[in-house]
Amino acid sequence: MSPERKGVASLPEAIDLSHHLSALARARSVSPLKNLARYYGRPGIISLAGGLPSPEYFPFDTVKADILSSDKFVSTPDSHGSSSGPLSWLLSLFSSESDSTIPISIPKYPSTPTDLNLATALQYGVARGIPQLQSTIVAFTTRVFQPAYADATVLLHVGNTDGWSKAVTTLCNPGEGVLVSDWTYPSALETMYPQGVRAVPVRMDGQGMSATGLREVLAGWDAAARGMPRPHVMYIVPVGQNPTGATMGAERKQEIYNICVEFDVIIVEDDPYYFLQEGPYVHPTQRFSTFKQTDMSDDQYLASLAPSFLKFDYQGRVVRLDTFSKTIAPGSRAGWFTCNPIFAERLERAAETSSQGPSGFTQVLIGKVLQTWQDKGYIQWLKGLGTEYTRRRNFFIDTLLAKFHLEVVPADSPHNLFPGTVRYIASAKGAYLDEKRGSGAAARKPLFSFVPPTSGMFIWLQLHLEDHPKFKDVAKESLEMQLWVKLAEGGLLIGPGNMFAADKTASTASYPGHFRISFSNADDADLVKAIDIFAAVITKFHQDV
Amino acid sequence: MSPERKGVASLPEAIDLSHHLSALARARSVSPLKNLARYYGRPGIISLAGGLPSPEYFPFDTVKADILSSDKFVSTPDSHGSSSGPLSWLLSLFSSESDSTIPISIPKYPSTPTDLNLATALQYGVARGIPQLQSTIVAFTTRVFQPAYADATVLLHVGNTDGWSKAVTTLCNPGEGVLVSDWTYPSALETMYPQGVRAVPVRMDGQGMSATGLREVLAGWDAAARGMPRPHVMYIVPVGQNPTGATMGAERKQEIYNICVEFDVIIVEDDPYYFLQEGPYVHPTQRFSTFKQTDMSDDQYLASLAPSFLKFDYQGRVVRLDTFSKTIAPGSRAGWFTCNPIFAERLERAAETSSQGPSGFTQVLIGKVLQTWQDKGYIQWLKGLGTEYTRRRNFFIDTLLAKFHLEVVPADSPHNLFPGTVRYIASAKGAYLDEKRGSGAAARKPLFSFVPPTSGMFIWLQLHLEDHPKFKDVAKESLEMQLWVKLAEGGLLIGPGNMFAADKTASTASYPGHFRISFSNADDADLVKAIDIFAAVITKFHQDV
Repeated sequence: MSPERKGVASLPEAIDLSHHLSALARARSVSPLKNLARYYGRPGIISLAGGLPSPEYFPFDTVKADILSSDKFVSTPDSHGSSSGPLSWLLSLFSSESDSTIPISIPKYPSTPTDLNLATALQYGVARGIPQLQSTIVAFTTRVFQPAYADATVLLHVGNTDGWSKAVTTLCNPGEGVLVSDWTYPSALETMYPQGVRAVPVRMDGQGMSATGLREVLAGWDAAARGMPRPHVMYIVPVGQNPTGATMGAERKQEIYNICVEFDVIIVEDDPYYFLQEGPYVHPTQRFSTFKQTDMSDDQYLASLAPSFLKFDYQGRVVRLDTFSKTIAPGSRAGWFTCNPIFAERLERAAETSSQGPSGFTQVLIGKVLQTWQDKGYIQWLKGLGTEYTRRRNFFIDTLLAKFHLEVVPADSPHNLFPGTVRYIASAKGAYLDEKRGSGAAARKPLFSFVPPTSGMFIWLQLHLEDHPKFKDVAKESLEMQLWVKLAEGGLLIGPGNMFAADKTASTASYPGHFRISFSNADDADLVKAIDIFAAVITKFHQDV
Repeated sequence: MSPERKGVASLPEAIDLSHHLSALARARSVSPLKNLARYYGRPGIISLAGGLPSPEYFPFDTVKADILSSDKFVSTPDSHGSSSGPLSWLLSLFSSESDSTIPISIPKYPSTPTDLNLATALQYGVARGIPQLQSTIVAFTTRVFQPAYADATVLLHVGNTDGWSKAVTTLCNPGEGVLVSDWTYPSALETMYPQGVRAVPVRMDGQGMSATGLREVLAGWDAAARGMPRPHVMYIVPVGQNPTGATMGAERKQEIYNICVEFDVIIVEDDPYYFLQEGPYVHPTQRFSTFKQTDMSDDQYLASLAPSFLKFDYQGRVVRLDTFSKTIAPGSRAGWFTCNPIFAERLERAAETSSQGPSGFTQVLIGKVLQTWQDKGYIQWLKGLGTEYTRRRNFFIDTLLAKFHLEVVPADSPHNLFPGTVRYIASAKGAYLDEKRGSGAAARKPLFSFVPPTSGMFIWLQLHLEDHPKFKDVAKESLEMQLWVKLAEGGLLIGPGNMFAADKTASTASYPGHFRISFSNADDADLVKAIDIFAAVITKFHQDV
């Protein structure tokens, strides 16, 4: 953090952020408490202004929990029992018993006014969150994401889904479009559509949204032909992209940011998988040591993560959405915006007339976990999580390797649909060859292919249905759904690719079929069973016509 | 609950509820999980469809709390130490120690699948809430509010503010109006305005919204003159109305419901103060026994409460908003809708793309409190709360009685602005008489007046500024704010009346000034101090010109 960083309002390059506000956001009143705010909290003043129950009537005297130690996942061996990294013996010396828990407790009344307490957290409060949690998050955000301007503002919200919903109502008017990747998180689209805001798909490659594709869409924008003005908002999941698993590096982010400056686009960065960065998948025969974030120093670890768009954001045009859903638990219903103070003020007003801030129970419990673990502990926890997901990702792909014949298509192959990535093409094990292709390696009939994800929870399988006998008879989407139903009937539920298409009106023939498979939750035995079902059903699907 | 109650869909009188949905609500997709829902939860199926973290990664092993006993407030003596009711000695025999607490605990993994547990509650879940809490609330709602049709649907939400916000987007289009009381909760208006939905004020009396006034507004509706179609949605706080404290009885509710049937209006019943029904204020000299809900049987108690609009709702046109904010704690951020299944489905889709359901921490903790207390205990808790608020209301008005000269204007007096209510007119104690009025009782110069509230948290003071020397010089609203600032500078913060005006464009001269004072939170000593400040400042304000 260079001390000379300036606030967005004082930057010579600053854009007029206020012109990005939607009609709805402009129409929102100032805080209804504005009149009262001059006097609130003045020492000695008696307030009979609010409809607040007495904390005496909160039936909770103390809220407590037994929490895991932040080093819980430090010494998890990888699934193949291979080396756990050169320093793991050292780390394990400092590890507490991995099964021990730490008791935490939040009293109704604090012993010092700044302590976490139920009397405040369970009372009506400001929508931005209780100060103790807010200040912890401000420090974390500043350290980890390093916003490029000084007055980036943090505001708690009730989860990224609601955060995105509020961003849409704050930034978009009905009839406008939002730039999204060709394949994107369906709930993000379901949030926009009813508000009259349409998806404007941009093509993707192995790093997610293509910068060239973005420039083409914006530079060639024909408002009349498109029936809407050039989009001025982008929705993007840059790490462990949902559904493709792609992760965007610093260079691509800089390129995209520059294009957004050029065309005055606000970037909404929805980044739930940020701390699930797993590194490249390495074939087991070449995996001499396992990638383990727990073997890194904190600074090494943070530097190893793809940067946030905030780091490039010298103009305050990024609205970053963070969530505790993947790092603590989805049921927390808590996360936070980081954005410029103009947007933050409007977003807070929006929260005041709808969701308010996160639950007080959530705020004290997460607040106390973070206070107990301290910064160092929370980062240790995140490293442990990253290592766990790396293990899961490896186990899943290793099992695919064991059940299918996998061939690697190099990054520069013209057959590679996502340029710049290593793609694995799967065919049936053994002798199931394609007669038309003759014999040998080239004769193998491809069933599906995928780019091993470097972050997140998902593997995005591309189906190879071009050799399927019914390929010319029915739309591919329909073949995808036929196979999906057979898999479900066979006992395996996965995400059908068509759910994730940004442009549902595009000819389905222009897309190959896809599935999104999550390796985040099932245990190893179920993952093996799942791949067995998948192998049996997809092989039969190709034979059985 | 008569067994012959029918669902709205099967009622011959049923209105077409679907035509009430806004364009936005119609545009909302069906559940994005619809495709998957056929297979979810099928025994033996392996799901790799969702982006769910493993519960193993939730850092909470157990969440616990020490909660108050449900009889905590049973034997609170009233502030004057008068009789605690004829049966209190009996109840106290069964009371546990009022200061003891009960430990509760929710484990990560349940011993039986239906037990409350963190693995489910902290995971992604359905927006309507976890089944254990939902079913408890369904039973409670059915017993207490007695909806008049069989398929009234309960859906958890994140608090009534968000519930109202979702009701507006689900039922109203921009350019439409919502029927509200002349004085109403400002946040409800702040939620509507940015969405292009305007307030249509209806005049009030001692029971809140006037049925005659409502009929006049609807029957005489001139869409061209008003610039909007006749409103088809009403927002109403029928118990302990905010800000006036008025409570609407069964007869008035029936009248208003019938008018809403006639003019096809949907009633959104925001009822946070339902369990703070305090009964009529009785002058201390006539208070032979204190009104104590804790002395009633459960059935007596429930029958003593003003009924919900649901009880009259044979057509499914009521959307009821309940909240735990006043009965458990505001920081719970949890409450529930009760409405017809058509609206419920659209509201659930709205929640799926924004707030989701309440926090999992909230759901397990409140769920466990309700399980621990049982129905009987929760009703005991509510009775205790009601008794506490009755004590607070009495203490506040008793203190006004001690500090001012109060005269009672009977219900049928033409001077009574809220017909049908007993109004207290306050003047300075002692010899401060109005020269123009001569001597004797009639010569007292009225400073303010109020109708003692029978429910809720607020006293709504009407200022008597007509004798103020500046009355003719400045608008009353401005006199109200001048006095408000003097009070705040003097150390007392209360709600200025203009905050609560539904029609801010109406001539301020048509309204006397008002203040809303809350007796819900401050302790007795602060309430006495507050009234001292109030007495000193208002008396000086009238003298000091």
